[in-house]
Amino acid sequence: MGDDTTDGTALERWTADETAVVGYSYSDESTPPVIGGEGTIRAGTIIYDDVVIGDGFATGHHALVRELTELGDDVLVGTNAVIDGRTTIGSHVSLQTGVYVPSHTEIGDNVFCGPHAVLTNDPYPIRQEVDLAGPTLADGVSIGANATVLPGVTVGEGAFVAAGAVVTEDVPPATLAVGAPATHRDLPAELRGANNI
Amino acid sequence: MGDDTTDGTALERWTADETAVVGYSYSDESTPPVIGGEGTIRAGTIIYDDVVIGDGFATGHHALVRELTELGDDVLVGTNAVIDGRTTIGSHVSLQTGVYVPSHTEIGDNVFCGPHAVLTNDPYPIRQEVDLAGPTLADGVSIGANATVLPGVTVGEGAFVAAGAVVTEDVPPATLAVGAPATHRDLPAELRGANNI
Amino acid sequence: MGDDTTDGTALERWTADETAVVGYSYSDESTPPVIGGEGTIRAGTIIYDDVVIGDGFATGHHALVRELTELGDDVLVGTNAVIDGRTTIGSHVSLQTGVYVPSHTEIGDNVFCGPHAVLTNDPYPIRQEVDLAGPTLADGVSIGANATVLPGVTVGEGAFVAAGAVVTEDVPPATLAVGAPATHRDLPAELRGANNI
Repeated sequence: MGDDTTDGTALERWTADETAVVGYSYSDESTPPVIGGEGTIRAGTIIYDDVVIGDGFATGHHALVRELTELGDDVLVGTNAVIDGRTTIGSHVSLQTGVYVPSHTEIGDNVFCGPHAVLTNDPYPIRQEVDLAGPTLADGVSIGANATVLPGVTVGEGAFVAAGAVVTEDVPPATLAVGAPATHRDLPAELRGANNI
Repeated sequence: MGDDTTDGTALERWTADETAVVGYSYSDESTPPVIGGEGTIRAGTIIYDDVVIGDGFATGHHALVRELTELGDDVLVGTNAVIDGRTTIGSHVSLQTGVYVPSHTEIGDNVFCGPHAVLTNDPYPIRQEVDLAGPTLADGVSIGANATVLPGVTVGEGAFVAAGAVVTEDVPPATLAVGAPATHRDLPAELRGANNI
Repeated sequence: MGDDTTDGTALERWTADETAVVGYSYSDESTPPVIGGEGTIRAGTIIYDDVVIGDGFATGHHALVRELTELGDDVLVGTNAVIDGRTTIGSHVSLQTGVYVPSHTEIGDNVFCGPHAVLTNDPYPIRQEVDLAGPTLADGVSIGANATVLPGVTVGEGAFVAAGAVVTEDVPPATLAVGAPATHRDLPAELRGANNI
């Protein structure tokens, strides 16, 4: 249970199950996470120090949010989902079970990542020294279940990545990306319109 | 350790490691899970309230079984596997490491899901209001490692989904589904015959 | 915290967070794991008995290393990664978040497995009785994110498996495997050279 004593009164702001860790210290100089109101952090989840989270936060079980991450309001981090630090995520975002978000990723508002979607940040893993850069998911993007998004790719506003797709190139706004490697199509009628999270 | 006191005698029925949670309460009105004999629930696993499980249950570590789920006898829920609730699963079923079963899924008897197989239940995630409906896996189905099965799909009796396949349409009984999107072939000789779990 | 009392002096050798389990007993005759110096075992991770690990070991959270496994020096087992036992892994190996290594797998030195890479060990799951045999990953292999490697496959020295690939056949040394099922190409210039972990 977190509290806010800035006005001298302890206010209950968010709740965590007993086996959740809120404020995992990763260095001698790290500072506890700041989490907004009405959050629910479920058993087994670990939130590192140096994380800032808005109101209405919710997690499943055994989720992980590492250091130097900022999350907006009304963000869900599902069971076994991992945000591997140094990442910025907007508001009204849903990361379903087992989603992987590497460091140095940018995620906008109203974004949905289906179960086991995997984002990546290293184009030549272990073979070249490069700056790690995850994808950029613009506002209103949906990523399908078990899809893979390659490093540095930008998925444009309102685009939809199909389940199981492997996204190797930028996806234009309001476009459907499907297949491996993903090709691009117009959004079918039933996938048009804004995300409603 | 669970016991059965219906006849006034505490009988040892199943065992759980100390860090497993058997009976995670998700509402004020939820009731503890009912688990049959000779079960083994390993460290880190969480079983919600309002779950009914048969005899011979076994889990790996950090598995999750959510509310309003029924499992038959001799079901294995592997490490990190997630059953996201409101689902019915038969007997002699093996869900390997990291399998994801969404809510509103139907799984028969003698079903095998390989590591990281992902089932889904939302055809137009976040873009349309629809009733969630996961796949139906008939008796004797095998789903290969890291395969993805789309919402509402029926995989017929004895069918076999290859590793990494993305199943977008119903699979007839005793059929091999392979590729992304999956196409259908006759079962090769070495994959004929019943599952033996 | 482990110590080494062979010379009568307790020496601090590795550290584990409070909620990590180092020495999960799986039988009455199992013996505690042996772990080298300067290891770091993070919260939620479980290391079974009958495991031998070299120096410089590190884990993420909720990782699992099962019995009868040998790891060399400087091995990273990422968050939610699972080594399912009876496996030998070399030195300078990095298994990223959510990697699955089945039993009876052989992994050499300087190997990288990206997030959610899935290795498998059963060619005809549940339909034939066969000896389980995972893949062999030779020295210097990289496996891309969310790739799937089929049972018994050998990935040759310095080969590179692309993200999302499904590897169904042996991959020659210094070769790029891409697609589902994976086809083989010469390594592009930016992927030549040794892994540097």
